[in-house]
Order: sequence, then structure tokens, then C-alpha cells
Amino acid sequence: MAQKSIIEVSTKSKTDWIDITKAVQEQVESSGIKEGIAVVYVPHTTAGITINEHADPAVVADINDKLADLIPADRSYSHTEGNSDGHIKASLIGTSQTIFISNKELELGTWQGIFFCEFDGPRNRKVYVKVLGN
Amino acid sequence: MAQKSIIEVSTKSKTDWIDITKAVQEQVESSGIKEGIAVVYVPHTTAGITINEHADPAVVADINDKLADLIPADRSYSHTEGNSDGHIKASLIGTSQTIFISNKELELGTWQGIFFCEFDGPRNRKVYVKVLGN
Amino acid sequence: MAQKSIIEVSTKSKTDWIDITKAVQEQVESSGIKEGIAVVYVPHTTAGITINEHADPAVVADINDKLADLIPADRSYSHTEGNSDGHIKASLIGTSQTIFISNKELELGTWQGIFFCEFDGPRNRKVYVKVLGN
Repeated sequence: MAQKSIIEVSTKSKTDWIDITKAVQEQVESSGIKEGIAVVYVPHTTAGITINEHADPAVVADINDKLADLIPADRSYSHTEGNSDGHIKASLIGTSQTIFISNKELELGTWQGIFFCEFDGPRNRKVYVKVLGN
Repeated sequence: MAQKSIIEVSTKSKTDWIDITKAVQEQVESSGIKEGIAVVYVPHTTAGITINEHADPAVVADINDKLADLIPADRSYSHTEGNSDGHIKASLIGTSQTIFISNKELELGTWQGIFFCEFDGPRNRKVYVKVLGN
Repeated sequence: MAQKSIIEVSTKSKTDWIDITKAVQEQVESSGIKEGIAVVYVPHTTAGITINEHADPAVVADINDKLADLIPADRSYSHTEGNSDGHIKASLIGTSQTIFISNKELELGTWQGIFFCEFDGPRNRKVYVKVLGN
């Protein structure tokens, strides 16, 4: 069995991470699949998906401050759209994440949340969720 | 249902990203699977797979320039084969990517392409593609 | 068919990569699944999973030296637990890896091993392994 759905996300600034854990869990429940995996995928090239701590927002702030340090927006790049830093961050963070499902629940660790990572906002974005299993 | 196939890639320089989107799409079509996922995997330790913009080649150039800045080849490393920079980049970019399949088509975003990322070429390389679904 | 199991890992220092290739292969064998995929997942936010060379331990040392250079532990961070460097490394390395299975064997490349990557040890950690296939 498999179900695909789309989560719509509106980001508010150039760099903006949105906690989509609940939205993904809702898609798992609506799929009717009890045991399997969920794959969360962004069809964009200046955004990513990561799993990290969602209890303290300072964690996400620290990750983005460090990424901005390593990959500044104002460096001279070849791509003329002015968002090369976002493309680079997207490939480092990654385009998708896979999470296990047990008894209709995402099997995340205690501190783990799923984040949509905007690196070239603000924009209206899509996240694809595919639930596979039985 | 599942099908595994191998794509052969020849890289031309130490750092060389090759757009394998069409080759992966061909494997999806030949699998006969209509709905599911494709996993694209490199069995190498100085190469990776990423998904990013394939319309403007300057995007890939910017990613590789920045990676070379952050992880120079000429730094003093412990591993004596002279390709530690390639190993480090491989773990940051990642060994595989998962893409959804709908109606026999890879569900990539408008600007997305799938790249084989060579970090220690030139070499003859393999990419494994597994298509899972119905 | 699907089977989930847990591998227990004890890390010995703040940064400590443990080769779990054999442990994952044992889970594949005990699953009875001949053809499919294995997904290896960490339910932690300061640890990751990567695939890289496990023949020469200098490769892993070089990766961790470079990560420590780029993401020092003693930088001033917002998150007050003193492990922001570990959270940042976790998102760059990634939370899971997917490996193909053929004839009950992990289809790793010649030099590839699967590593649990500790970035905030020493700790007792868990790794989830899910084997999917037939």
C-alpha cells in the first residue's frame, strides 16, 4: 500500500525552518498504513528537509547561523539569480528524509522533529509525503 | 515489485558532476513500475548523489567552488591516498537519494535534476538504481 | 515483508564513529528478507549515520578533524546545553541511510562501511534498522 500527499508551507523570510512534524503525522494517519515508512521530499532546489531537535528553537537558530557563516549569501557566485547560497545549503541538508512508522505513529526520537528548511524565501512551497507499508 | 539496475558513468576530472536524470528515468520506465519510489545509490566512498538545479550549470559550479573552499584538497590529512577531501565531501553530500514515482515518471520539481557527484576522478563509476512499487 | 530491530551502541568520547556494518548485516539475515532495502536510522539529534571507507581509520579521523574545524565546539551558540556543534553536524551528516539488499546481503561497495556517528558522547545510543522486501 502507498499514499502520496502534499503539505503546503508558506515561509516568511529568506531563511526559515518550519516544524512539519504534526502535518506529516496527520498524513500518516490518513493513509491508514500501520507499519512502514514515510518519505518526506521537497521538490525545490533551494530548500531541504532535516530532522533535528524541535524542543528548543535555539538549536535551529544555531544551525542556521553556522550555515550562514560557512556559506555567506554575499559571496561572489556564478549563478546570477543571487540564491546560490540556498542551492549549496539545499545539497548539504538534503532533499528528503525517511522515518519509520509503527502502529500508525512516526517513530521519531524523544527530541526529534521534522523541519522544512527554507533557504531562499519567503515563498509558498510544497512538501511531498509518501507513506509505504501495510 | 522491485527492479535493480546499474548506470555506468565516466567522469572526466577530479570534481565532475554528471546529470543522470534521464538515465534514472529510463530505468524507471524499463522496470514497469507505475507507482512507487526510486532509490539512487553510489557504491563508492569518494562520490555522492544529490538533487539540485540542472537548468543553469553555474549552480553546480558554485556548489563545487564552495565545497573546495571549505574542504581544500591540499590540506594536511592523515589518510595517505591524497583523496581525503573527496571522502569528506561524499559524507556531506550523501550516498543516495530517494525520488517518488507517479505514473511511471520521476516526480521531480521543475528545476530538479539528479546528479552523480565525482570527488576523486577521473574514474569509471557505477550508480545503482532500485525501483520499488507496483 | 518488513522487520524492525534495534542495535545498541556505546560511544566512548564526544566524537566517536562506530562501524555498525556487521550488526546491520546480522539484522538483514535475521529478517529472512532476500531482496529489498535496509534503512538505518538514528532517533537522536546529536548523532548521524553515514557510509564511507572503513578500511583505513584515517579516513574517519580526517572527516571528523575537518568537521571540528568548520563547526568548532567552543564557538558561542544560543542553545545553552553546550552541544550545538553536535546538532549542526547531525543535520549535515544525516539521520538515516538506505542500502540495497540482494540475496540476503547488504549491497555495499568494496570500501564502504556503515558508521554510527556520535557527536555528543559518550552515551548509550540506539540505531533503528528496518528491512523491507521479500
